[in-house]
Amino acid sequence: MFEFLIEGSVGAARAGTLTLPHGVVRTPAFMPVGTQGTVRALSPFDLRAVGVQMVLANTYHLHVRPGEDVVAALGGLHRFMAWDGPILTDSGGFQIFSLAGTRRVDDDGVEFQSHVDGSRRRLTPEAAMEIQWALGPDVAMALDHLVPGAADRPTLAAALARTTRWLARCRQRHSALAEAQPDRQTCWPILQGGTDSDLRVDALTQVLDLGSWTGLAVGGLAVGEPRPSMYATLEAVEPRLPRGLPRYLMGVGFPEDLLEAVARGMDLFDCVAPTRNGRNGQAFTRDGPVNIRNAVHRTDPAPLDASCDCETCRTYSRGYLRHLFVADELLALRLLSLHNVRILTRLGEDARDRILDGTFDGWRSDWLARYTAGSTT
Amino acid sequence: MFEFLIEGSVGAARAGTLTLPHGVVRTPAFMPVGTQGTVRALSPFDLRAVGVQMVLANTYHLHVRPGEDVVAALGGLHRFMAWDGPILTDSGGFQIFSLAGTRRVDDDGVEFQSHVDGSRRRLTPEAAMEIQWALGPDVAMALDHLVPGAADRPTLAAALARTTRWLARCRQRHSALAEAQPDRQTCWPILQGGTDSDLRVDALTQVLDLGSWTGLAVGGLAVGEPRPSMYATLEAVEPRLPRGLPRYLMGVGFPEDLLEAVARGMDLFDCVAPTRNGRNGQAFTRDGPVNIRNAVHRTDPAPLDASCDCETCRTYSRGYLRHLFVADELLALRLLSLHNVRILTRLGEDARDRILDGTFDGWRSDWLARYTAGSTT
Repeated sequence: MFEFLIEGSVGAARAGTLTLPHGVVRTPAFMPVGTQGTVRALSPFDLRAVGVQMVLANTYHLHVRPGEDVVAALGGLHRFMAWDGPILTDSGGFQIFSLAGTRRVDDDGVEFQSHVDGSRRRLTPEAAMEIQWALGPDVAMALDHLVPGAADRPTLAAALARTTRWLARCRQRHSALAEAQPDRQTCWPILQGGTDSDLRVDALTQVLDLGSWTGLAVGGLAVGEPRPSMYATLEAVEPRLPRGLPRYLMGVGFPEDLLEAVARGMDLFDCVAPTRNGRNGQAFTRDGPVNIRNAVHRTDPAPLDASCDCETCRTYSRGYLRHLFVADELLALRLLSLHNVRILTRLGEDARDRILDGTFDGWRSDWLARYTAGSTT
Repeated sequence: MFEFLIEGSVGAARAGTLTLPHGVVRTPAFMPVGTQGTVRALSPFDLRAVGVQMVLANTYHLHVRPGEDVVAALGGLHRFMAWDGPILTDSGGFQIFSLAGTRRVDDDGVEFQSHVDGSRRRLTPEAAMEIQWALGPDVAMALDHLVPGAADRPTLAAALARTTRWLARCRQRHSALAEAQPDRQTCWPILQGGTDSDLRVDALTQVLDLGSWTGLAVGGLAVGEPRPSMYATLEAVEPRLPRGLPRYLMGVGFPEDLLEAVARGMDLFDCVAPTRNGRNGQAFTRDGPVNIRNAVHRTDPAPLDASCDCETCRTYSRGYLRHLFVADELLALRLLSLHNVRILTRLGEDARDRILDGTFDGWRSDWLARYTAGSTT
């Protein structure tokens, strides 16, 4: 259980197979985000139909509503949301540090205010593990202390040191919880350090000093920094990452970023962009993003993307999709979300095939050239 | 084409088969409403999966947005909304006379204001036929002059007389349009007359005097009058309706009304209630309506209705559905709409089976007793 087998590579890019309690994940793979125990506008059947292998859910959201006790009473997160494949939950840290509302951090943990009912709540590394254990995903994430990427170096270093102390406590608590059921769930650490390569390397050393892991996440990127900074940071850190662990790059989900990150040795990705942008009428296509509300699509009988095999592209014209958006119809939100998730999962599948047959680099250049050319027209 | 074959009956209740250009409809049958060319929150695949045979779309809505020219340019209504089964469109009259905004009626037609952009528009009987011909449904409805059910008798009688004059014009224009393609579309008249049985009988005589029809709609019921009045009106009119025509009772879609109307000789039904109420969190079940937002469902692992075969009931717990509603998740709207539509289509299927095997009356009493008992708890 929790094994990761690398089956092929091209440069830093890898094709692998990750074995989790609820199934196997072929990487590279994009995970859509089911914030509140549902990938917005999509059903689990939709997700399967577009090749989703693993989904992410948010511990913070499920903790404040409906509460992990309710999820557990309804059979755990898999049964609750009717997704029988692998699930990863984040620790709740990202939401606590990014959603509006006051919070107070000390070494013990973080006190915050629920965005739902304003109640004061406290999350410690131990509690983050206990909540995720109750929820029951295949992979639980350790609690980290996030600071803005633009923070000064001493602030960043202090947050990193605290994250490492919290990680040790997460690890200890998770081991105790998992002792009787070691094949139920694993816990992954999160590497922080912003775009400062030295801090990243320090963080990695500290994480690896705590013992062996079954996977590792790179956090604190794709949060607004320039793309070249993200790519440079990945390039600096990647050679030092243990080769045998799956690497999850948090928050990446635009097509071009996913491809560039695969080329820099990342295996798993998550992002709300495909669903959120889809709900706003933006579709990712082979020829760049398309705003389907645009009047140019009014009587266009073509699909969003003739090369896409999703239900949306196989069934509906751009003209109809535009009508659904202009008329505020619910089906619009679902159809564009479905398509965008397919674009991302397909990119993972295609990247994997191209890594395995050795043609990844040329394919990636061609894909990006066509996508970028379309984006500027 | 446009034939209706009655295969069995129990009292006034009938089981029939209606042949339309885009397929066969086994009756009794409920038609969900795709107001703007989409049954809200549901895809055509969802509709097929829950046994929908025929859908209704609104001429008024499609005329003001996106316009019948756009629908025609995109291949007609079937291709536009990706529903290859039979479609019926209303004439637009109901929306013109019920949506807010000023309107002016004279013998020529009705002038109204678009609810979308406020533009002044004019609908005549001829235009209603031309718009529906461009949209391309299997069945087009004649334009009628609606007045409030509570209007005095002279007002009702004048509106009826005008409706008959309009019907003659609809018939003439539709015949001309259909001359070269007689198997493309048929046109049905609408019987008005409120709950006044004498007026209803007058109206029927006038309609039948115009010639033969392939079907007939009963309008102006299920618009807020007491249920017994609706049932009494149906009982007064039914014996005089030509037996060989399919009878479409407009606006009926609550389970109890559908069953009572089938018992009174009605064959086809449409209503927004299953989808609208579903979006508000009300589910129809074998044991009466359920408000899924209720806290009693918080940790309930049971499905909405254990006897229901829809995806929602086969897949999700009441606890999860409640969470989706409380958390304002889009999937909630779809799952309850899907279930409610299934309850209505299943009711048609079951009624048909019970008419064909002669057990309809007892089955209906049992069904209504259980549904009503649940409704009062």
